[in-house]
Amino acid sequence: MAGRLMIGIDLGGTNIKGAVVDEAGHIVTAHSIETRSELGFAKVAGRIADLAKHLLKQVSGQEVIGIGIGAPGPLSHAEGIIYRAPNLPGSENYPLAKELREKLNRPVSLENDANAAAYGEFLAGAGAKYDSMVLLTLGTGVGGGVVLDGQLLRGQFESAGEVGHMIVVPNGRPCPCHQKGCLERYASANAIGERLTEAVQAGETSLLSSRIESGAKVSSHDVLNAREAGCSLAARIWDEACLYLAVACVNLQHLINPQLIVMAGGLINAGDELLEPVKQHFDEHSWRIGNDRPEIALATLHTDAGVIGAAGLAVK
Amino acid sequence: MAGRLMIGIDLGGTNIKGAVVDEAGHIVTAHSIETRSELGFAKVAGRIADLAKHLLKQVSGQEVIGIGIGAPGPLSHAEGIIYRAPNLPGSENYPLAKELREKLNRPVSLENDANAAAYGEFLAGAGAKYDSMVLLTLGTGVGGGVVLDGQLLRGQFESAGEVGHMIVVPNGRPCPCHQKGCLERYASANAIGERLTEAVQAGETSLLSSRIESGAKVSSHDVLNAREAGCSLAARIWDEACLYLAVACVNLQHLINPQLIVMAGGLINAGDELLEPVKQHFDEHSWRIGNDRPEIALATLHTDAGVIGAAGLAVK
Repeated sequence: MAGRLMIGIDLGGTNIKGAVVDEAGHIVTAHSIETRSELGFAKVAGRIADLAKHLLKQVSGQEVIGIGIGAPGPLSHAEGIIYRAPNLPGSENYPLAKELREKLNRPVSLENDANAAAYGEFLAGAGAKYDSMVLLTLGTGVGGGVVLDGQLLRGQFESAGEVGHMIVVPNGRPCPCHQKGCLERYASANAIGERLTEAVQAGETSLLSSRIESGAKVSSHDVLNAREAGCSLAARIWDEACLYLAVACVNLQHLINPQLIVMAGGLINAGDELLEPVKQHFDEHSWRIGNDRPEIALATLHTDAGVIGAAGLAVK
Repeated sequence: MAGRLMIGIDLGGTNIKGAVVDEAGHIVTAHSIETRSELGFAKVAGRIADLAKHLLKQVSGQEVIGIGIGAPGPLSHAEGIIYRAPNLPGSENYPLAKELREKLNRPVSLENDANAAAYGEFLAGAGAKYDSMVLLTLGTGVGGGVVLDGQLLRGQFESAGEVGHMIVVPNGRPCPCHQKGCLERYASANAIGERLTEAVQAGETSLLSSRIESGAKVSSHDVLNAREAGCSLAARIWDEACLYLAVACVNLQHLINPQLIVMAGGLINAGDELLEPVKQHFDEHSWRIGNDRPEIALATLHTDAGVIGAAGLAVK
């Protein structure tokens, strides 16, 4: 029977996921509720406290040594404050860790959600047998986190591991962050659909041309299907996404030199259609000096990485 | 009068530099000898030992707690072995640390020269007041090192901090390392001269055209002079080197999030002609999210960084 337990919370714009997690990163019990962000952030903080209390009750009699929250940022782990989370109105400069500490009478740590997911995957997922790992989360955007020798790399200004804003094409596609040519502008689920749409609008042809001309939005899933159906434009855009991911992996290899690079997020539903071309481009584009190539793999925890990582970070 | 002292050795293909260094990273006394690599590496190792003994004699009566060697790689710090240093014949798999430990009766640590220089600049140079720093050494090639929270980042395979082989132009200029578009192929002293030569050979005009047509080699210094004399091709190539350095800084900002990025090596003789355009491009190309911009500065220790860093690492 369990040693010490932690609670992990994954705060999103739509749902708040919670779980009781053991020290090996296994989920003992889990529960989710709606965020109800329209109620304002003070109410959302109350809902997080209620969820944590509910989970504490589930394991009453056992020791729960801390509570970790993974939340959208920017935020400060050191100060326990959310600076502003665009999908959570009223969250500006909210001292969430302190408030929950008082309400729950236990240590509470706040971490950005991408770091929490990276740490979860490191603790109990694809990285469980490794000492150092970088996570790339390929969803609406591209996020990530870096774990070195078992420690999350937060960086001097608490914004290390922002792998999606690595510039892979100098003066490339504009990014809302103001940069040009960010990885996120080529290899996120959104970017893949957008790039195909732009190419068709610029006169190239695709199996998806008529859909685009009718004004429909194209997803990365549509691009993958069109590629499988023989659309050469879709194949090129998918392959370029994989190339830029491989370039990002080469840069991580040379700067950070991790054992493992893990891809997570919606895009990995493509499975080997994503993993194999990324690995092939990496093999082709990485240097021939030294035996220092990281392994490249897909995440295994899927949507549980956030709660597991947040719980694991609660005791660091 | 001094606390504990260390000896730092900077092993190069032409000279072996040595210094006694105090814990603050200040040089107490220094001495250099020729490497005489043509004698074979066993003799070179003997010369290193003799240099260290000479330095020990200079501070006899004082406590010298360790000896650090910065050497060209690839090598293993963990094992104290040089794998093969192309300019040092006979160095293949040479157990240098063990041999010197036995000859000198003191702890000996072996480190690659770029890491030693990074740590030296961190300890007593441009990084002395900072907690985290990345060094970019802009010479024949581009090397570097990463210091996080006062610790050198070695990486899982002991090859972290290879900033020169970050890919800044996917499918760009070929590099001898086998990659294409490495930073080193745009922003090293060699690359800047080569790129201007290639542009002239491809039909562009430059104040240096007649020199190139006569078969003379063009240096980065020549390019800088031509730029100052109004050559627009030289100005463009110099500016592109600064742009790619800035892109590398943006990527370091997002992945590692250091407080400070320091440029060192022969190219920094250009002073503000290098620093200012790199800073301008960085300001323009970095995101507008968060206050997480590193400072960018020039190294201050010049050729002493290696011995100081090697000495500092001897006691880590």
